[in-house]
Amino acid sequence: MRKIAVVVTARPSYSRVKTAIRAIHEHPDLELQLVVAASALLDRYGTAVKYMERDGFPIAAKVFNVLEGENLTAQAKTTGLGILELSSVFERLEPDAVMTVADRFETMATAIAASYMNIPLIHIQGGEITGNIDEKVRHAITKLSDLHLVASEKAKERVIKMGEDPAKVHNTGCPSIDLAEEVIQRSALDYDPFERYGGVGRIKDWENNYIVVLQHPVTTEYAESRNHIGETLKAVHELNIPTFWFWPNVDAGSDGTSKGIRSFREQNSIEHIHFFKNMEGRDFLRLLYNSKCLIGNSSVGIRECAYMGVPVVNIGSRQNGRDRGQNVVDVDYNSENIKNAILSSIQKERIKDFTYGGGNAGKQMADIIATTELDFKKILQY
Amino acid sequence: MRKIAVVVTARPSYSRVKTAIRAIHEHPDLELQLVVAASALLDRYGTAVKYMERDGFPIAAKVFNVLEGENLTAQAKTTGLGILELSSVFERLEPDAVMTVADRFETMATAIAASYMNIPLIHIQGGEITGNIDEKVRHAITKLSDLHLVASEKAKERVIKMGEDPAKVHNTGCPSIDLAEEVIQRSALDYDPFERYGGVGRIKDWENNYIVVLQHPVTTEYAESRNHIGETLKAVHELNIPTFWFWPNVDAGSDGTSKGIRSFREQNSIEHIHFFKNMEGRDFLRLLYNSKCLIGNSSVGIRECAYMGVPVVNIGSRQNGRDRGQNVVDVDYNSENIKNAILSSIQKERIKDFTYGGGNAGKQMADIIATTELDFKKILQY
Amino acid sequence: MRKIAVVVTARPSYSRVKTAIRAIHEHPDLELQLVVAASALLDRYGTAVKYMERDGFPIAAKVFNVLEGENLTAQAKTTGLGILELSSVFERLEPDAVMTVADRFETMATAIAASYMNIPLIHIQGGEITGNIDEKVRHAITKLSDLHLVASEKAKERVIKMGEDPAKVHNTGCPSIDLAEEVIQRSALDYDPFERYGGVGRIKDWENNYIVVLQHPVTTEYAESRNHIGETLKAVHELNIPTFWFWPNVDAGSDGTSKGIRSFREQNSIEHIHFFKNMEGRDFLRLLYNSKCLIGNSSVGIRECAYMGVPVVNIGSRQNGRDRGQNVVDVDYNSENIKNAILSSIQKERIKDFTYGGGNAGKQMADIIATTELDFKKILQY
Amino acid sequence: MRKIAVVVTARPSYSRVKTAIRAIHEHPDLELQLVVAASALLDRYGTAVKYMERDGFPIAAKVFNVLEGENLTAQAKTTGLGILELSSVFERLEPDAVMTVADRFETMATAIAASYMNIPLIHIQGGEITGNIDEKVRHAITKLSDLHLVASEKAKERVIKMGEDPAKVHNTGCPSIDLAEEVIQRSALDYDPFERYGGVGRIKDWENNYIVVLQHPVTTEYAESRNHIGETLKAVHELNIPTFWFWPNVDAGSDGTSKGIRSFREQNSIEHIHFFKNMEGRDFLRLLYNSKCLIGNSSVGIRECAYMGVPVVNIGSRQNGRDRGQNVVDVDYNSENIKNAILSSIQKERIKDFTYGGGNAGKQMADIIATTELDFKKILQY
Repeated sequence: MRKIAVVVTARPSYSRVKTAIRAIHEHPDLELQLVVAASALLDRYGTAVKYMERDGFPIAAKVFNVLEGENLTAQAKTTGLGILELSSVFERLEPDAVMTVADRFETMATAIAASYMNIPLIHIQGGEITGNIDEKVRHAITKLSDLHLVASEKAKERVIKMGEDPAKVHNTGCPSIDLAEEVIQRSALDYDPFERYGGVGRIKDWENNYIVVLQHPVTTEYAESRNHIGETLKAVHELNIPTFWFWPNVDAGSDGTSKGIRSFREQNSIEHIHFFKNMEGRDFLRLLYNSKCLIGNSSVGIRECAYMGVPVVNIGSRQNGRDRGQNVVDVDYNSENIKNAILSSIQKERIKDFTYGGGNAGKQMADIIATTELDFKKILQY
Repeated sequence: MRKIAVVVTARPSYSRVKTAIRAIHEHPDLELQLVVAASALLDRYGTAVKYMERDGFPIAAKVFNVLEGENLTAQAKTTGLGILELSSVFERLEPDAVMTVADRFETMATAIAASYMNIPLIHIQGGEITGNIDEKVRHAITKLSDLHLVASEKAKERVIKMGEDPAKVHNTGCPSIDLAEEVIQRSALDYDPFERYGGVGRIKDWENNYIVVLQHPVTTEYAESRNHIGETLKAVHELNIPTFWFWPNVDAGSDGTSKGIRSFREQNSIEHIHFFKNMEGRDFLRLLYNSKCLIGNSSVGIRECAYMGVPVVNIGSRQNGRDRGQNVVDVDYNSENIKNAILSSIQKERIKDFTYGGGNAGKQMADIIATTELDFKKILQY
Repeated sequence: MRKIAVVVTARPSYSRVKTAIRAIHEHPDLELQLVVAASALLDRYGTAVKYMERDGFPIAAKVFNVLEGENLTAQAKTTGLGILELSSVFERLEPDAVMTVADRFETMATAIAASYMNIPLIHIQGGEITGNIDEKVRHAITKLSDLHLVASEKAKERVIKMGEDPAKVHNTGCPSIDLAEEVIQRSALDYDPFERYGGVGRIKDWENNYIVVLQHPVTTEYAESRNHIGETLKAVHELNIPTFWFWPNVDAGSDGTSKGIRSFREQNSIEHIHFFKNMEGRDFLRLLYNSKCLIGNSSVGIRECAYMGVPVVNIGSRQNGRDRGQNVVDVDYNSENIKNAILSSIQKERIKDFTYGGGNAGKQMADIIATTELDFKKILQY
Repeated sequence: MRKIAVVVTARPSYSRVKTAIRAIHEHPDLELQLVVAASALLDRYGTAVKYMERDGFPIAAKVFNVLEGENLTAQAKTTGLGILELSSVFERLEPDAVMTVADRFETMATAIAASYMNIPLIHIQGGEITGNIDEKVRHAITKLSDLHLVASEKAKERVIKMGEDPAKVHNTGCPSIDLAEEVIQRSALDYDPFERYGGVGRIKDWENNYIVVLQHPVTTEYAESRNHIGETLKAVHELNIPTFWFWPNVDAGSDGTSKGIRSFREQNSIEHIHFFKNMEGRDFLRLLYNSKCLIGNSSVGIRECAYMGVPVVNIGSRQNGRDRGQNVVDVDYNSENIKNAILSSIQKERIKDFTYGGGNAGKQMADIIATTELDFKKILQY
């Protein structure tokens, strides 16, 4: 019986790993130790922990380590605190392996605590290219990890090229695609978004004709966050199509973005936009599946939307370098270009894409984790 | 005028970077910000900071972050604390770039604090292979670094293979070789080691016939440290050659090693061994240069001793994978094998080796740092 | 020239100490080292640091140590982090004395860091009674402090009774009264609150007939915060008098309070209430001076309003035990009682009260600090 | 069933609380949660945790928080780290009350974490006077504590005078006296100290004529530690009586003390002194009971030795202000005075003293804790 500590630090990471958590939880040879940390615990970033509890997963430990402060120093310190706290958690839980997800700055804390404590480290979503600070973190975690469960063939190639043992690199596809597959199976919007998620604004006549916006600040361009979001707001405002707009998650600069939205809202009458703080993953995917287009820079556009065939207007550099399907149009931070891209996207034909897997990543991951040799020593393969 | 923060966390790292620090300090276009942290500040690991002050370098900040406790959790927490402290230091000093040395577990704190604060990171000694936990840390730091100043051609090849931009990888050789070159220029033992460094034991008639031992615990084999050191003690004890023995530096397991030495000393009459806590780098190299052989697992055997042509008996896995010259004989943790290897080594002819540079690494580094473009954004080169 | 480090951790503490900071800054024998920490740096608690900069005080250090999380554990950790950070700051600034203000939970970090580093500690506002968790913290800080600058005669008596050396206890009055005195000198509302402070709501015809609300959560009754604020909201809503309502500052439970306000606002049409996030101290006092009544549990009601003769409806236990003048009516968390208390208060005649000093506390404090013997050793006086 | 978390941070604290721990562990209405922290876990301070395990107490949590560094900043940070770690421990254990012992600088971390988390705090050994930095900490902890179990009538008076509710202050005597009573019951030295505790030196003919030395550095006189210990070493060296000398425990300055001892030992032939790192409490008391005299500044001289009637030469300021019996002679840091005091003490008649209790403090404490009302709210009693 292998004890597998899965550390989830943010709402978006949870949907990236949910079916893997479920498969570990249900696997006869694995014991799940779910550790919830950082913004996944915080109200103003959507309290992802509530969804985990609702999904029936027992929480083994909660780690509060987000230091307040709209600056990069606070981000760095959040990681330092994460190591202090997670090392105590790992000492108590004594997992046989630790699983860390993707590339957010706090995930480095998980990787370091596990590595230094000689616990085999499993990394999900290594080998991808994005062109921001996350890129550094992601590849550094690859170098600390002992088992790589990647989401695409190109990612696999890259991880191996970086010097990892090919026997330790498996392309399982991305667990987020598993959720998209579930949504496609039962695709009708079976809930009232206003009733279930509240939010500000009450748009009308949207059912068959709406778009969705989710745009995160780009960490390394901290000061420009506010301008970036302003261009998108302008474009969407002018289009006057019913719109669901989601607040971004925590990051240095998120305040620039948030302020931009708030101030725009105060200065403009925007009756066709409804703002949500967050939404449970499945409901969100279903909302996307039934939408005309997703606008912003979320990786959900590259991954789940590709698999579901939903058109995406991808703004700016955040997804640079990520392999993408034909559903995506890239534009820069320019309201006119954004507007035009939306207009052409909402008329596109839908084409499915399998770059990020076939819908059973979670199960594959659990099987590999249950049967592969787990070790914490490794050497460069050249 | 570029401000370069160099973070030194341990005694051995200091000699690895000393000529680079000097060259930065003296360079007309660079301003040195020397940050001393972790065991480099602590008395029981040799207070490296005193040598820095004696060498005339101004100390910009001191960071105490070593958490006591002979276990891996404390190591992880030491790194967490390092991030908390170093991020404050960097915020105050506002360096144009941060330089981190090699691969000790605490160096990760430097790399993370700098990366998350969007400060370009310079890494010395990337691309080398050693086969222990340091290996993971070293390559992870490579993935966080923006400029790589490596010590050998093979290291350069490996760093580039890992996906780094070739334009950002420079083989300058190792600054430790610069010190070896200085020693060769004036090689006579010009000091009395007992008078200058005290220590326990008073060996006699050693001037023209002595060996040196320096053996560190191997982190990931924590529990075995005591046995490992026991084999070496047995071999050296039986040989009855005048011996200078150096205490290892801090690491989980260092207590196993230290206890092994203490208990051996209490149970045996060992008049031909003198124990030193530490020694200033130049004096140490001069002692090595005039010795018959170095025994243990220090990288000084692979690097400086190679350049100086001193025979080395390298014990166990700590230097596995490191490129080495003809001066090195590898043995396992077995007193008989160690004894035989020493006996044959002390009769070897000396041959110089240039694998790790030609003696002007520090100057080359400063010139590159002063003139190259410094950036904190990068992408994988494939 | 004595270096005096003044540590300010929150917006309300700043007005409690502003004239003392100014007097230290201007004193020929003192050098001000202003350290800004915790919520005083954070946007969502009013960014008190901006007012300090605008008031012309140089900031010697900024300390981010607020850990996010709506729970008591996060509060405790915030204090732990404060000690880690402030000890580095004090080591660097080398103050001759550290001044800490009042009793907020983060001020303990200041007191401990200074005490353990053998730096004489000056405490402002010791000896007061309030009946909440702050009470413990305040008296514990008294026991760590070497010089006590208290705000009333009763406070002085209590501090001496606790075993402090009478020679080290001075009743200077409260610096907040200095600000009230300045306001009285020039009392007309000389700014447009909407224009200068924005906020939500646009009330009308308020100039000669308005009330002000400021109600903080009571830490040790965490879960009840939301109910508490609900009673006040109900009372004020029903009265239908033009109202300026201020958001509370950070504390466990502040989210209960904030949520209560938000949800009330969404469910009710409240055109006669305008919500402010915060206000610069002088403007706030001027607003109070010209108001009919202050409602809530802020100590500004007990102190500044007493000196200015403004009626106060004090709700619940937060100010329990504090000496108070005739301007205050105490009520429990009951909307009917609150409503009636407001109705009778707004018709009261104004009477000034000098319990908390005569308006020159800051200057007195600076003079004492400049001339008294500063020591960090003391013993119980019985 | 009340869960009582007892936090022990150092070897000497353990004997101060051992019989209380045992009584809590055995009490039908109490559940012991033993938390071991700081130097109580560290090898170089005697690994008190081993004795706890040997005594059969289950360890609920271990907290590593000692930051290395021979300076006051590191002490302050150790406390900060203690809060970070202990708050997680308390969150997990959910104790009904936390018990903290005495006044060491790390105990403040326990007190703060418990107070801020609204957990009732029980303080052992409040109200005593000592005249050093511990004094501040001790009385500050009194102000944070909700239940006071003090060791003498005078201590009780002082705690009440400080404004605590008399109903919450109980004079139980000191649990250390319980251990002294057990030793008196069976007083013969029933073990071989060399065999059981090793140590350096092998003194002879000591059985009926030996003295014991235990001298700690005095925190606030950091730099002078080495001189202080030098005077004692000189006195004891000249007396030439068989001596058992114990290393001090951790504190800033302990290195001054340790270095003084080491360097004296290297420079002098001291065949009549045997050095111990530490000793289990009961064995230590038995050794004291059979000795001619205790020299140094340990509180064991004031407490246990008084009850056992053993003469004590108390050096310097560390025990200043503590109530003491006729067994104690006070001297300053002067080798001649120390020597004379020892000579006269070893000829004194033995007189028992009951100032610190009658030998059943532990049981009384457990009974009070099991039956008294536990609350975390309190107000000053004047």
